Amino acid sequence: MAGEAHTAAATEPIETDAVVIGAGPIGLYQVFQLGLQEIRTHVVDALPHPGGQPLELYPDKPIYDIPAIQVCTGRELVASLLRQIEPMDAHFHLGQKVSQVERRPDGRFLITTDRGTRLIAPTLFIAAGVGAFEPRRLKLPALVPHEGRQVFHQAHDTAELANQHVVIVGGDDVALEWAIRLSRPGPAQPASVTLVHRRDAFQADPDTVAQVRALITGQALRFEAGQITGAVDSPDGLSAVEITSPDGSIHALPLGCLLVFLGLSPRLGTIADWGLAMERKQLLVDTEKFSTSVAGIFAVGDINTYPGKKKLIVCGFHECTLAAFAAAPLVHPERQVMLQYTTTSTRLHELLGVAVPRGSE
Amino acid sequence: MAGEAHTAAATEPIETDAVVIGAGPIGLYQVFQLGLQEIRTHVVDALPHPGGQPLELYPDKPIYDIPAIQVCTGRELVASLLRQIEPMDAHFHLGQKVSQVERRPDGRFLITTDRGTRLIAPTLFIAAGVGAFEPRRLKLPALVPHEGRQVFHQAHDTAELANQHVVIVGGDDVALEWAIRLSRPGPAQPASVTLVHRRDAFQADPDTVAQVRALITGQALRFEAGQITGAVDSPDGLSAVEITSPDGSIHALPLGCLLVFLGLSPRLGTIADWGLAMERKQLLVDTEKFSTSVAGIFAVGDINTYPGKKKLIVCGFHECTLAAFAAAPLVHPERQVMLQYTTTSTRLHELLGVAVPRGSE
Repeated sequence: MAGEAHTAAATEPIETDAVVIGAGPIGLYQVFQLGLQEIRTHVVDALPHPGGQPLELYPDKPIYDIPAIQVCTGRELVASLLRQIEPMDAHFHLGQKVSQVERRPDGRFLITTDRGTRLIAPTLFIAAGVGAFEPRRLKLPALVPHEGRQVFHQAHDTAELANQHVVIVGGDDVALEWAIRLSRPGPAQPASVTLVHRRDAFQADPDTVAQVRALITGQALRFEAGQITGAVDSPDGLSAVEITSPDGSIHALPLGCLLVFLGLSPRLGTIADWGLAMERKQLLVDTEKFSTSVAGIFAVGDINTYPGKKKLIVCGFHECTLAAFAAAPLVHPERQVMLQYTTTSTRLHELLGVAVPRGSE
Repeated sequence: MAGEAHTAAATEPIETDAVVIGAGPIGLYQVFQLGLQEIRTHVVDALPHPGGQPLELYPDKPIYDIPAIQVCTGRELVASLLRQIEPMDAHFHLGQKVSQVERRPDGRFLITTDRGTRLIAPTLFIAAGVGAFEPRRLKLPALVPHEGRQVFHQAHDTAELANQHVVIVGGDDVALEWAIRLSRPGPAQPASVTLVHRRDAFQADPDTVAQVRALITGQALRFEAGQITGAVDSPDGLSAVEITSPDGSIHALPLGCLLVFLGLSPRLGTIADWGLAMERKQLLVDTEKFSTSVAGIFAVGDINTYPGKKKLIVCGFHECTLAAFAAAPLVHPERQVMLQYTTTSTRLHELLGVAVPRGSE
């Protein structure tokens, strides 16, 4: 999977107005609201593409509670936000995790990523959702040597699975959707697809479960209840996994490729080391500025907490809006922050690239 | 203008879960969020249609800052919200103002409108924008007898203006857009259109101003700088108004119809008498529940204030979301309030009418 769209590891630090960590819906709308305040933004995300949780966890599922959007998928939501923020011309540093944040003598932050990107800005916005996502792994050391070649914990290029015996581990929506996708006739069809889950019951959308059941009944998909407890190696690599059934019996399941979808494990990563006030693994913020306990560092979306907090996208949109207003005087101390409306403000029309260059009074 | 879509003045009080005052974008999304909490809602609005400020003040202007909607007009925003809240089956009482709110012995509120509608509910949501809108009037007693026949302070049926000498008073977007609309050739064209404003400068969108200037240059629209300071009556009604120019000279301007667009005057109406804590004519709320100082009465959108408050639609959407969560235990004390996601919750899918009636595990 090709990584960052707009950046390479920089040797010289990049000076900008704001750094947003997280390119999910809230991080993207943060870019928009910062843009309306004439604040230039760089965005860092651990994933190789913008979109965050909706694109990672439910790209094709309908969302019904985004205001004034009757229904959209995670993918559509992200696409709409990317279109909306285009005029803001943000720079994305993708496939990178923030490894260090330091306060410089001039009061600005120096943000360093694990790919060597260095960004200097007076404001930092943490929109990292429930932390950098980390796929939950099968705790089986014998599989480690095969990771990235025959064992995958994330979305995988389906073309490489053609004519392979594919085993999928998991029982949630993501696992089942992969089982459905690979079991259907197509140009790059695997030789066989087997779904392995600890029991014959799934925690997923009823419609998705129904499709999986139909595929199993039609023998397009095999199912095995049990847990993977061992690996069988051959000179060519991993040749089978050992399955322990609920009744305790053990047998070998031959395979060419193992896709593990056990969900994403929330973790705060390096954020936990920054000395920011926290409450139950969330960053504590005020509801006026959505600032953390460190001035200049804001936290918006699922990663923050405050009295009444609900982890909803609609709430994150509000949070990053007020955070942008609060950041404006830090970036432009010489200006007065004014509330302008995109419907009437000619200055905002210029920023949005929709200005009508005609004479007025 | 015909009024309420779904109601007639009731003699018996209607018992429901929630009453929302104001059918603007925030009142409408309030209905949606209450619906997700299984709270039945009645909506009261002084205007004869849902939509509030965007529909009244900028129906055809683009809005750029609704999250994930690159651009939409006020009219489109309202239409989208109405579509989204359809499954919630709210009842609208339109063209009515709330005239009284009383606390009943059982703790619920009795809300009475000036049309005699009476609603009983344990929760009340004030989403009345900057108060019930009231058009600013020309302070000229001589015009009062002609109101509703030749003098209008609000949008008017253009068909009735055909072949009339129409005078428009005002210099803002609404006034100018009416001047543009009426000056253009069409089936119901007035005999003449004259725009009167105190000075030859307009507080409106540059594009709109440019169109008005072009119409004046092309003699499709007349302009007079000055103020209306008198009325000339004839046996058939109002025959002319007296204009006082900036230089102090006075002359008569004959007319058949006078359209006054001097903006809307924000007023809190009866809300001010309810004993709710206020700050600068706004209702003071907390940021956890968006509750006023009276338990059970919430205030959302432009009418409320709290530290950091910005009068933006995106903020109102968040406010009414948290208010709905806070209201849930008041309406359903027996249930535990849980955060469910519209993407995954089968219960929410049922409420939204998108449930898939198939077998799951």
